[in-house]
Amino acid sequence: MKIFGKNAVTEALRSDRTVEKVMVEKGDKGEVVALARRKGIKVQWVDRSVLDAESDKGRHQGCIAFVSDFAYCEVEELFPRNNKDNVLLVILEEITDPHNFGSIIRVCECAGVDGIIIGKNRQVAVNETVERCSAGAVSHVKIARVTNINNTIKQLRDEGVWVYCADMDGASMYQADLRGNVALVIGGEGSGVGKLTRSLCDGVISIALKGKVNSLNASVACGIVVYEAVRQRQ
Amino acid sequence: MKIFGKNAVTEALRSDRTVEKVMVEKGDKGEVVALARRKGIKVQWVDRSVLDAESDKGRHQGCIAFVSDFAYCEVEELFPRNNKDNVLLVILEEITDPHNFGSIIRVCECAGVDGIIIGKNRQVAVNETVERCSAGAVSHVKIARVTNINNTIKQLRDEGVWVYCADMDGASMYQADLRGNVALVIGGEGSGVGKLTRSLCDGVISIALKGKVNSLNASVACGIVVYEAVRQRQ
Repeated sequence: MKIFGKNAVTEALRSDRTVEKVMVEKGDKGEVVALARRKGIKVQWVDRSVLDAESDKGRHQGCIAFVSDFAYCEVEELFPRNNKDNVLLVILEEITDPHNFGSIIRVCECAGVDGIIIGKNRQVAVNETVERCSAGAVSHVKIARVTNINNTIKQLRDEGVWVYCADMDGASMYQADLRGNVALVIGGEGSGVGKLTRSLCDGVISIALKGKVNSLNASVACGIVVYEAVRQRQ
Repeated sequence: MKIFGKNAVTEALRSDRTVEKVMVEKGDKGEVVALARRKGIKVQWVDRSVLDAESDKGRHQGCIAFVSDFAYCEVEELFPRNNKDNVLLVILEEITDPHNFGSIIRVCECAGVDGIIIGKNRQVAVNETVERCSAGAVSHVKIARVTNINNTIKQLRDEGVWVYCADMDGASMYQADLRGNVALVIGGEGSGVGKLTRSLCDGVISIALKGKVNSLNASVACGIVVYEAVRQRQ
């Protein structure tokens, strides 16, 4: 898999991911080159035309990293060893737009979310667009990919995690207790959280909507809900 | 100006904006046509190829509305008559990406923000991409366009509005009092809030960042800060 752009390549080099090589424009002596050398990663200087050909629409900012495919975790690995009572997870249901998925990863990284759980079906996987839109955050966030999200929700609840879905017509998120082990379910762009998924959760929490259009982007909604959890945990 | 897509066109028809005509695909008998007829707006049925030619990359979902250019307000008009003590404004500094601007308008509409203030320079204006990315919300939000944001900040403070900018290294936004007449300054994608602007504000508030990348998208950051104000005002 390829990673494009200075931020994303820098973050990949800073993370534990396996970077096979870095391709930069001839003459480049910037941070990417310095970081790659320090880690003993092969640097290949090429003409801009080579970078253009390797990328989509020339969106590379002069550097491309060739990395191993994204390594998903198991759900169990999302629980940090030193913190088993205050885990914050985000479960995504059918996010199909890679830009949205990238933005969600980005805000989850900022909020210190312990891990993201996605399904295998009707959900965009971590691809090059997701990498780019996450501004490199994907290299620092644990993501588990499961066959069936609903089974995972049941399993998490059995293990004592409180699972809330963010959807319309729920209780105000300010009233819900989002401390302790909590997983927040964010629905897809079009349809929101599915009926079955909703029924499996401990509760439904809602963002106060005061407008006429009242349509929130999935990544913005995720940011608002996740940061309410951060506030309560302070 | 043209508005593309079912949601955006529907919202334009529902709002007070002047819609000159609506162009839909032959055979369409959906909500857009019904709404336009109810308001006495001309409906033009055309072949898909005509819609494709009128739009960029065929992103029209079968309908285009032709509307008068976006009508900006004066800053004074952002203060509602029935609520002069609890006004929430958002000031944008040099947002250059139309997708970000559209997303910001969208979340501000949901949060019930009274108005958005933008500058005339180094700031994307309301254009067709902004309209589309706002999911129609632009038709329901008041936007004032000023020559100099810093002068407006001084003027607002003189009138008793508390102006906070969202930036790094500030006080936690959870500690700030965001009730009453408040304006929140959101900085541009690249550079954040400028030094001079920052110095003119009553205070700097920050979103808790707990990750390694810690780069929040402008619209996600705006959503988180604006919804913290909504929470405090409940």
